[in-house]
Amino acid sequence: MRRIKIPEVAIRRLPIYLRVLNELTSEDIQIVSSAELSIRTGFSSEQIRKDLAYFGAFGTRGVGYDTSQLGHQIRKILGLNRETRVALVGAGNLGTALARFNLAKHKDVRIVAIFDNDWDKIGKSIAGVEILPMEDLKAVAQKQQIKMAIIAVPAPEAQKVADSLTEAGIEAILNFSPAKLKARGKTYIQNIDLTIELQSLVYFTNRRDQDEETEEDEDEEEM
Amino acid sequence: MRRIKIPEVAIRRLPIYLRVLNELTSEDIQIVSSAELSIRTGFSSEQIRKDLAYFGAFGTRGVGYDTSQLGHQIRKILGLNRETRVALVGAGNLGTALARFNLAKHKDVRIVAIFDNDWDKIGKSIAGVEILPMEDLKAVAQKQQIKMAIIAVPAPEAQKVADSLTEAGIEAILNFSPAKLKARGKTYIQNIDLTIELQSLVYFTNRRDQDEETEEDEDEEEM
Repeated sequence: MRRIKIPEVAIRRLPIYLRVLNELTSEDIQIVSSAELSIRTGFSSEQIRKDLAYFGAFGTRGVGYDTSQLGHQIRKILGLNRETRVALVGAGNLGTALARFNLAKHKDVRIVAIFDNDWDKIGKSIAGVEILPMEDLKAVAQKQQIKMAIIAVPAPEAQKVADSLTEAGIEAILNFSPAKLKARGKTYIQNIDLTIELQSLVYFTNRRDQDEETEEDEDEEEM
Repeated sequence: MRRIKIPEVAIRRLPIYLRVLNELTSEDIQIVSSAELSIRTGFSSEQIRKDLAYFGAFGTRGVGYDTSQLGHQIRKILGLNRETRVALVGAGNLGTALARFNLAKHKDVRIVAIFDNDWDKIGKSIAGVEILPMEDLKAVAQKQQIKMAIIAVPAPEAQKVADSLTEAGIEAILNFSPAKLKARGKTYIQNIDLTIELQSLVYFTNRRDQDEETEEDEDEEEM
């Protein structure tokens, strides 16, 4: 079997498809068209068909995709069919919030170790997970087979932490610090960019005025 | 002038285009094709052309888009050409982290008021912004013309907070709580879904094995 390398951006859309497929399954909808997926996800039908074709989910022409089968395929390609153990670096406000959120929400992606360099925090626990010193990172990551990490440290420390994580064998990093990080070797770094979320939200604070404008304009044209 | 209603999902892609346009401007690239935008954003050229056509930015066929002009248009349509004042509700770990992040990063979107119902927190400040009691929400929002808010409270309290925000005239809400919130009236609610980020990241922890598989498979085919 020859496998095509799937672009990173397409991978990042897969969980969005998965969420919609889960919704459809819970609504007892067994077959879904790319047009319906387009309405529910906001991506164009062409984009969706292109993304899904990367991993051989072509659906049936004129019918659509089998929702539960496609969901299963996406979970498998993402690697969600087994538990992923995650290390969290940074036990400050953000790290604490993430660790607490984690325990409540996720079963397949789980924070199993927390690291910090502050001896006031080391030895304490967040949501049942003990805070360990940074020096233990490599040994713990290898023993617990941790391949994914979350960075929640201040910007000036973030690159050093990212390098330590790579050194410890971590393959994918979710970076919450505002720092732009350089990936070393094959480690993949994904930045959480709150700017994107905040900027698009601003549009919706102006929506009422815009709606009113639109209605007025239409009235004028009708006269 | 008749205005077409732009779909919410297209609006959410505009800041991504804006980030790329800012990069291009800083690289002194004055004209960009939709093909180049596609490479840099990960959305298909058709998707990009469709999104930009919503607000009349058609570019020049065979040439492309003027980067600084398009950036200016996007900032204007999003409403980023003036400061947006934001209220933060919840001064716990997450709220504190967001308030600190805010001051460091944003000039056009700024947290100007923080609310909580915990009297141990009320009267204290985060990054220079005083924490006020929830009872003051409506009066402060109206006085300071705040139209946007961030919810960083525990899930069971989130819906009540969202309702109070709507009541106080808030038009757009960024919800960090894991609760699914119902929007009342015209208030727009955007949920931050960490699951999406974590799930796509899992894929990249399996990438090395996949790459190896791919190489092996190709070798076999060559034989």
